[in-house]
Amino acid sequence: MSLIVLKFGGTSVATPERVLKAAQRLVDYREQGHKVVAVVSAMGKSTDDLLALAREVNPKPPARELDVLLTTGELVSMSILAMAVAALGHKAKSFTGHQAGIVTTTRHNKAQISQIKADRLEQALAEGYIVVVAGFQGVTKQGDITTLGRGGSDTSAVALAAALKADLCEIYSDVDGIYTADPRIVPRAKKLNSISYEEMLELSAGGSSVLQMRAVEFARNFRVTLCCRSAFSDNPGTLIKEEAVEQAIVSGITYDNSEAKITIRGVPDKVGIAADVFDAIAKANINVDIIVQNISEHGFTDISFTAPEGDLDRLRPVLDAQVAKLGAREYLINEKVTKLSLVGAGLRTNPGIAAKMFKVLSKNGINIEMISTSAIRISVIINPKHSELAQQALHTAFDLDSTQIFEEDNLSAEELDAKAKKGR
Amino acid sequence: MSLIVLKFGGTSVATPERVLKAAQRLVDYREQGHKVVAVVSAMGKSTDDLLALAREVNPKPPARELDVLLTTGELVSMSILAMAVAALGHKAKSFTGHQAGIVTTTRHNKAQISQIKADRLEQALAEGYIVVVAGFQGVTKQGDITTLGRGGSDTSAVALAAALKADLCEIYSDVDGIYTADPRIVPRAKKLNSISYEEMLELSAGGSSVLQMRAVEFARNFRVTLCCRSAFSDNPGTLIKEEAVEQAIVSGITYDNSEAKITIRGVPDKVGIAADVFDAIAKANINVDIIVQNISEHGFTDISFTAPEGDLDRLRPVLDAQVAKLGAREYLINEKVTKLSLVGAGLRTNPGIAAKMFKVLSKNGINIEMISTSAIRISVIINPKHSELAQQALHTAFDLDSTQIFEEDNLSAEELDAKAKKGR
Repeated sequence: MSLIVLKFGGTSVATPERVLKAAQRLVDYREQGHKVVAVVSAMGKSTDDLLALAREVNPKPPARELDVLLTTGELVSMSILAMAVAALGHKAKSFTGHQAGIVTTTRHNKAQISQIKADRLEQALAEGYIVVVAGFQGVTKQGDITTLGRGGSDTSAVALAAALKADLCEIYSDVDGIYTADPRIVPRAKKLNSISYEEMLELSAGGSSVLQMRAVEFARNFRVTLCCRSAFSDNPGTLIKEEAVEQAIVSGITYDNSEAKITIRGVPDKVGIAADVFDAIAKANINVDIIVQNISEHGFTDISFTAPEGDLDRLRPVLDAQVAKLGAREYLINEKVTKLSLVGAGLRTNPGIAAKMFKVLSKNGINIEMISTSAIRISVIINPKHSELAQQALHTAFDLDSTQIFEEDNLSAEELDAKAKKGR
Repeated sequence: MSLIVLKFGGTSVATPERVLKAAQRLVDYREQGHKVVAVVSAMGKSTDDLLALAREVNPKPPARELDVLLTTGELVSMSILAMAVAALGHKAKSFTGHQAGIVTTTRHNKAQISQIKADRLEQALAEGYIVVVAGFQGVTKQGDITTLGRGGSDTSAVALAAALKADLCEIYSDVDGIYTADPRIVPRAKKLNSISYEEMLELSAGGSSVLQMRAVEFARNFRVTLCCRSAFSDNPGTLIKEEAVEQAIVSGITYDNSEAKITIRGVPDKVGIAADVFDAIAKANINVDIIVQNISEHGFTDISFTAPEGDLDRLRPVLDAQVAKLGAREYLINEKVTKLSLVGAGLRTNPGIAAKMFKVLSKNGINIEMISTSAIRISVIINPKHSELAQQALHTAFDLDSTQIFEEDNLSAEELDAKAKKGR
């Protein structure tokens, strides 16, 4: 008998039909003798609807009240899922974040889980209930309702899996696993059977949105085995765990179009200048990614870095102040760049990979603007117009191409849904 | 400085526009120096929408989960109302039933308030917050979420008013007070300035749906002064308190079209027979209202009574069993009857009222099928086709007619809304 946590994303419970399908998965595991815990997101786009409602009465709603409002989406889906389990003849009990003992920090809208008091869940599991928990939410020690920020349901699921010492934590969404590249861009992308935590972290950091980075970090720290699966098929999905079964040199290619490149030109080259600049940016709560400092010429240097495009409005006044303070010449913002990353545990022990990557790009006439590497990742900043060509060329060059052109998972959620209906 | 509880029904907070209007009322009282507590129902028809959603996955949803689901409607409206108060520049804090310390019995869907631990609310009031509480909900000692049954928000408001020793509890809805008759049927109906708890109880029992009977009982037991007001006008409404200011002989006429009349014919007239029948009906959880037993002829008697039309499906098998057990001849169900009641504190001391009522009805050719009286109420069962004529005739006969034909409050909620918009 195992304990399995199943997390269902918004699209996986968007309609009564899909909720019943999710319930069937819970019941199947229960009938196999497992203890079963479900963690649910809000149905479909209901969180967006609630946000829109809030803005109608207050363009800047207070964080505490916004949290109360947003958590209702998960309360709806958890009770509906528990009802669906009952409709299938099994007993289920739903738990709010509060009832599940999910204690968080007091930072509304972006709280972090500080403790899980799982007694009530453990009791319900011991009594044979299928347990359904609202994702994305918790409660402070003072009893105020909090949310974990967008996508926080993944974190809820992994944290509960860790607290309950689950054998497996399945993450259901509308994609059926982790791919070697984005199948919409690289039709020969392959689904991976397994991948290590570190590789998954690099993929998430590089732009893959299948899993919340925070959830992967949590899983790695507590050694929770994850499985990314589709809610609309019975395909086995991708396992994420300590060591992948097959250690490919390159596991996948990921990209991110939401970064901007900023260059500060003519900075007087004195010790501690870079530290000053990035200290000021960090204080404005902006995450800088790749940083490159050119070699100093005649006592002046250029500093380039990337930052999220969405943070530019907050970044500009910081840069204005820094340029004035440092006596730099100017700063330039290139709002559209693409960050392309090659990720693989094998990169550690294969020093030729970076060189090969650069050669492939150069052969295709693609200019590399910036480079950054970690032990298992190589990222380059390129012009977005070359993004698709680069991904396809690299995918082929590193022998990632599937023999079959990827098809099924190019379907939209609606098409998958229609397919799921037909299959019942 | 007073403490005022304001309860807003579903129509009063159905749109962002109306929520802002409700928030303005809270802010106005706060700026006058009062402590302010709001109790809210779910926005508009959202409770019905949630019920429909539940039925899509499970035609008989488990009571515990249905309670979790239904309470989300009030969580939405309370957080939105708190945001609206913030938008008007005042500080507000919302509280779920759990957070407000509303402890209930464990009977899901129809729980009763057993205790209110108001410490958190009192603290927030002392800190100058406008307090917003979710109506209709509570939590058991074990931490399970419960609801108080339809219309339970009135009870929440009155119970909180009692616990916080409020000076006044205002109930906002789409009608602007208690009338001497239903203005849709009797255009010359007058709004009452005040009415006693007992009269209000009889009006509610007689079919008036302006206030939940349970809430009125609660108010009477704890001497909470109520005021029924319109959310769409500044009319003063009707005060409900220990003694009405003007003690009219007849305060009002009320009617109920949702009762059915049942007659069991040819019942052997033995001691304890009626007790047996009504014991069996009570065990099926059906509330019987008026009971009449005819004089026995040749050892057989007829028993007639009224019961809610909606309970007939559950009543029939009980009657089948009783008729067989007692050796009665048959039972007849008259699905459509109207119960018409005359209510007034003056009935106690004016013995001629009943006779006058019967005479007015008879003059108008209206046959009385059953009669039931209390100290301050006379009810008759008549054919529904005579309902409107009877109400109008009695209203005139007992000098209740206003000199002006009632107009404004014949508006629909939508019309009132349009009017409210225009008035801003």
